[in-house]
Amino acid sequence: MSAQDGYDLWLQYDKIDDDKVVENYLDHISGFHKFGSDETLDVATTELKTAFEGLVGQTLKELNSVEENSVVLGSEENLPSEIRAMLKSDLSEINSEGYVLKSLSLNNNRITVVTGKTDVGVLYGTFRLIKEMQLHNNITQCDIIDSPKIQKRLLNHWDNLDRTVERGYAGFSIWDWHHLPELIKPEYIDYARANASIGINGTVLTNVNASSLVLTSHYIEKVKALAEVFRPYGLQVYLTARFSSPMESGDLKTADPLDPEVRQWWKDKADEIYAEIPDFGGFLVKANSEGQPGPNNYDRSHVDGANMLAEAVAPHSGIVMWRAFVYSEDDPEDRAKQAYSEFVPFDGQFHDNVLVQVKNGPIDFQPREPFHPMFGAMPDTPLMMEFQITQEYLGFSSHLVYLPEMFEETLDEDTYVQGEGSTVAKVVDGTLSNKKLTGIAGVANIGTAKNWTGHPFGQANWYGFGRLAWDPYLDSEAIAKEWLKMTFSNEQEFVDPVKDLMIKSREAVVNYMTPLGLHHIMDTGHHYGPGPWVDDLGRPEWNPVYYHRATSEGVGFDRTESGSDALSQYAEPIREKYNSIETTPEKYLLWFHHVPWDYKMENGQTLWYNLAAKYQEGVEDVEEMVNTWNDIEEYVDDQRFEEIQMLLQIQLKEAKWWRNAVLLYFQQFSGKELPEFIPEPEYDLEYYQSLEFPYAPGISPSWH
Amino acid sequence: MSAQDGYDLWLQYDKIDDDKVVENYLDHISGFHKFGSDETLDVATTELKTAFEGLVGQTLKELNSVEENSVVLGSEENLPSEIRAMLKSDLSEINSEGYVLKSLSLNNNRITVVTGKTDVGVLYGTFRLIKEMQLHNNITQCDIIDSPKIQKRLLNHWDNLDRTVERGYAGFSIWDWHHLPELIKPEYIDYARANASIGINGTVLTNVNASSLVLTSHYIEKVKALAEVFRPYGLQVYLTARFSSPMESGDLKTADPLDPEVRQWWKDKADEIYAEIPDFGGFLVKANSEGQPGPNNYDRSHVDGANMLAEAVAPHSGIVMWRAFVYSEDDPEDRAKQAYSEFVPFDGQFHDNVLVQVKNGPIDFQPREPFHPMFGAMPDTPLMMEFQITQEYLGFSSHLVYLPEMFEETLDEDTYVQGEGSTVAKVVDGTLSNKKLTGIAGVANIGTAKNWTGHPFGQANWYGFGRLAWDPYLDSEAIAKEWLKMTFSNEQEFVDPVKDLMIKSREAVVNYMTPLGLHHIMDTGHHYGPGPWVDDLGRPEWNPVYYHRATSEGVGFDRTESGSDALSQYAEPIREKYNSIETTPEKYLLWFHHVPWDYKMENGQTLWYNLAAKYQEGVEDVEEMVNTWNDIEEYVDDQRFEEIQMLLQIQLKEAKWWRNAVLLYFQQFSGKELPEFIPEPEYDLEYYQSLEFPYAPGISPSWH
Repeated sequence: MSAQDGYDLWLQYDKIDDDKVVENYLDHISGFHKFGSDETLDVATTELKTAFEGLVGQTLKELNSVEENSVVLGSEENLPSEIRAMLKSDLSEINSEGYVLKSLSLNNNRITVVTGKTDVGVLYGTFRLIKEMQLHNNITQCDIIDSPKIQKRLLNHWDNLDRTVERGYAGFSIWDWHHLPELIKPEYIDYARANASIGINGTVLTNVNASSLVLTSHYIEKVKALAEVFRPYGLQVYLTARFSSPMESGDLKTADPLDPEVRQWWKDKADEIYAEIPDFGGFLVKANSEGQPGPNNYDRSHVDGANMLAEAVAPHSGIVMWRAFVYSEDDPEDRAKQAYSEFVPFDGQFHDNVLVQVKNGPIDFQPREPFHPMFGAMPDTPLMMEFQITQEYLGFSSHLVYLPEMFEETLDEDTYVQGEGSTVAKVVDGTLSNKKLTGIAGVANIGTAKNWTGHPFGQANWYGFGRLAWDPYLDSEAIAKEWLKMTFSNEQEFVDPVKDLMIKSREAVVNYMTPLGLHHIMDTGHHYGPGPWVDDLGRPEWNPVYYHRATSEGVGFDRTESGSDALSQYAEPIREKYNSIETTPEKYLLWFHHVPWDYKMENGQTLWYNLAAKYQEGVEDVEEMVNTWNDIEEYVDDQRFEEIQMLLQIQLKEAKWWRNAVLLYFQQFSGKELPEFIPEPEYDLEYYQSLEFPYAPGISPSWH
Repeated sequence: MSAQDGYDLWLQYDKIDDDKVVENYLDHISGFHKFGSDETLDVATTELKTAFEGLVGQTLKELNSVEENSVVLGSEENLPSEIRAMLKSDLSEINSEGYVLKSLSLNNNRITVVTGKTDVGVLYGTFRLIKEMQLHNNITQCDIIDSPKIQKRLLNHWDNLDRTVERGYAGFSIWDWHHLPELIKPEYIDYARANASIGINGTVLTNVNASSLVLTSHYIEKVKALAEVFRPYGLQVYLTARFSSPMESGDLKTADPLDPEVRQWWKDKADEIYAEIPDFGGFLVKANSEGQPGPNNYDRSHVDGANMLAEAVAPHSGIVMWRAFVYSEDDPEDRAKQAYSEFVPFDGQFHDNVLVQVKNGPIDFQPREPFHPMFGAMPDTPLMMEFQITQEYLGFSSHLVYLPEMFEETLDEDTYVQGEGSTVAKVVDGTLSNKKLTGIAGVANIGTAKNWTGHPFGQANWYGFGRLAWDPYLDSEAIAKEWLKMTFSNEQEFVDPVKDLMIKSREAVVNYMTPLGLHHIMDTGHHYGPGPWVDDLGRPEWNPVYYHRATSEGVGFDRTESGSDALSQYAEPIREKYNSIETTPEKYLLWFHHVPWDYKMENGQTLWYNLAAKYQEGVEDVEEMVNTWNDIEEYVDDQRFEEIQMLLQIQLKEAKWWRNAVLLYFQQFSGKELPEFIPEPEYDLEYYQSLEFPYAPGISPSWH
């Protein structure tokens, strides 16, 4: 087993060690022929050649014509009419980015056709053919038709221009701005390949806490260089737009969105960008949120702000993604309610090319949150999903947590807004309210780490996000299996146990960090480790005590009618069901209710007992992960095996730290003994409270 | 030619393509036998196996006894007495880190012995044997004896705990503090291998602008993990000690070096560190320099401060490296004079385990400086050389500049303090004044870049520094040749022209940045690009105008008797020779003299004409580098070839920027036309003055 640094991600093209499988491929593929001359078609054929030669160990010839056993690549319009005719009904089923992968017989020649409406579709189909081989699937009778269900499938990089990454735990920004536009790093190309292989078609290069500097001509030249690398891979670039840019990067006295000069400034800026980057995607904006400037500074609304930018990019087919992550520093209302309160009244008022980007839950990327109540509540506005792939609140890059399981949980939740079956997925893919423009974003976990994501299993979260962005109805377990096979090994003895480990890993982190609906009790600022005791920060909703509300009587945030009534933002029957402690799912218990320590739960034990049991279960979950991993050593190269082994030790250490610190803290309120299954904590509460981590990663330098 | 990302540095063990050479090695080496069981010996034999198997393509067996054609490894004391006897005189010539590499006949068996006084010596000898093979040298009659001439051969990392690197241009810090001590990255091991291969035996992990946090137990545990990785490679760890640590990381009210509690605090801290890291090297200190705390804060001297720390580490055989890089914010004296003025009176007062660390020149790592006048001026104090490998003032990591040529220039300079031949090298290696403790440090250019140094040729500067640290009398041209062969190709058609390119590259950067003795006219703060016009910074000596002193009459800094008299710090005949414009070498002209624009130089042309000619020459030098590189494409893998090609385009663009900006600026003072050989500048002076680079790399975040 050779050492691997993980740089190749799931695009591992090592020789397949199963001779029968290789034979099948050699029997059916001996060369390729392409129709068309687009640069996207070039990267597709180059990828196919590289993959085939690696997996099968034989050169894949380019043929001058369609011969027996050739792979035929080309978009619908470039295919010969006979082939087009044979695929007519298949092609009618796909959208502009979809593909058809089909075994055909043409003039008695057996061929495999990869086609789509566009060359990008052909590229996606090519990656699908490669994947079939990576999964060792039989390709004798290919008959695969697939199209993405969501239109804008984006990564959001919270990357600063100094290469620090806010909430980045995989080193620093892969964008080496200083050396652009001249120096094109191989990473840029491989980044585009990886994204194309899972259908991601857009990337926001810069942090939502934005710098207006990126909109100057000096930087546009650099962005252009990246856009040119990405273009053949169907990957559009987007930028974050700092709302005050007309004053900072321009010389206006205001950024008022109704001011004619401001509106003209943005139009000119958009024209300038599009002159250099004709396929520029558009802007992502965080406005009037956590100190960022926005239209409210001028007593204008989010609609005024978003529509101004939308008008600037509309002539170029650009879009604006306007984030709904807002909460006021003055408003005493439950933070969980504020985005809904502010945005829902605007439903139907945004321009056609505006998407409102909503986080999966109403607080902030916790290990578990109920779905955000805005989903389903704005039928006349396209809502874009924002997931976080980087693990800000989930142990950073040293914890193995398989996030697609969590993404799936949210996508599958039923909003009931149009009766049963009104799932979040249907809001996001536009089918629930017949939306044309649809989108989904994942906050990237990518950095300068040699393996891109720090933790080798972080790659599965990038991969899985891409797969769910393509089709939000996919099963996260199936995604885990294919990722494992492509990345490590096809051996069932490896895939089955490690797939189980991945699936369980998400509940593990919930258990050892925030079980039973607890949330946002991470230490403040960096969000590293437990900090339920923090109560001295400027804004109430920055303090963990705001979220858990522990007293001697009980713990949890009452969001029912008797409390903040955040529940009223959900449709029936959720409202009614969650309004009572008894009928609230236990996983959301302390999210919606303040519950007495002695409250008897389903298993007949008290809340206090169950809370302790969950923390203990979390630790034991990680112990099981450690054991599972040790058992599969023979299937993984030494380098990745050992790296994951070491990282699991960090995870185990930190799971125990969480259990001990949080239980000792809550014990002050419950006044009860720790159940006997909890081992004696290594340190006392004062020790845990004394820990400080000024250089925990992922903090923007300005916060130091 | 396969793609290479440069991660392997000069330790490339690709199969040798010359069959005769391979045959020679196979004829003489078929296995190895080791005497001893030290972990250093283990890494030596592992390295030999890896290298042999790569270079020659055959497995190197471990033998149970000494057989025909075996490599025999072991330190003197572990060797069998017959072999020891045969090597007696060789072994008497080496020091504790030296090695003997010798072909012998033992009981009619032809063998190759690698030995030394210590296992680290054996390791160095093993790397030498490997290098002989990388260079395709005949190993039939090995007879090589070598010892390092300087005792402490260190890298200084200006790495912060948040992983930013002050003056780092190769990404971020390779020390992933957050994941230590659990996660041991392969890079840590390969870093140690690379250093051992060139004889570097110490590394200061942290920035001289230090954080006291690294001295807390939380971090000592992390440092220990690195020390354990490095130990088998003979690489000791050192830390920077922030002078105010007793107040910051301890809870004392003072850091006064004469306060008994402070002295005890440092002793206890040293004991704590050595309990965890028995071979801890000691402390590097920047005190009372550019805002760092130090003994002067308590009206104590540098001697008081250094000796206090020296006493704390002395029981553990630790050392203190006390930097002489000081200049006062109040003192109006020429900055070039201040370190000498402050330190020379202390000669003989430092404890035995203190080294005073002096930069190569009296200002600050300029493209060219005369040697620092402290060298030779403190015969009773061990002076340690501080070179800068990272290119703070030399174009960062995008400029190809071969620094060993510059290091050699300084080491070869004659101080004349004990008559002719009193070179800087003899001060540094201790031979001039019979010093026991000797040292040399290089400020590292290493970061998270996949190839370690950003520019592939930056590796040559790390390599060459190590070679000169081992032997300061080596020829930089010979070092360039061996590095090229090990790193790229042994083909003469490649080595000769690229070696020439490297040697000329240093004069090129002097020409296009600061010819004829100009210095410190880089833009301020980040030192990126030209900024001769900067005149508004808080301290006079931070401003470029302080250094060039251009007026309508002339340009340059008068450091003769009629000026600052910095010349008086040098010995005769330097003083007399440099006191006159006529006898000052032209390369130092404007360093020591304020010279009229119309002054006629050796070639009969005016200063103004010659200044312009030098800038133009610098640009043309880079154009030649571009052409040379394009010519050798066939000898280099695509990835590194293209990367260097792109970087040379940046260098060419910036060389022109320098020429245009500086000449347009000085033209305001000279009032003369640009000579006709200068192409019309692309932009006007205002444009160049308007450029701002707030995110230029290498700036500590706190400076933003």
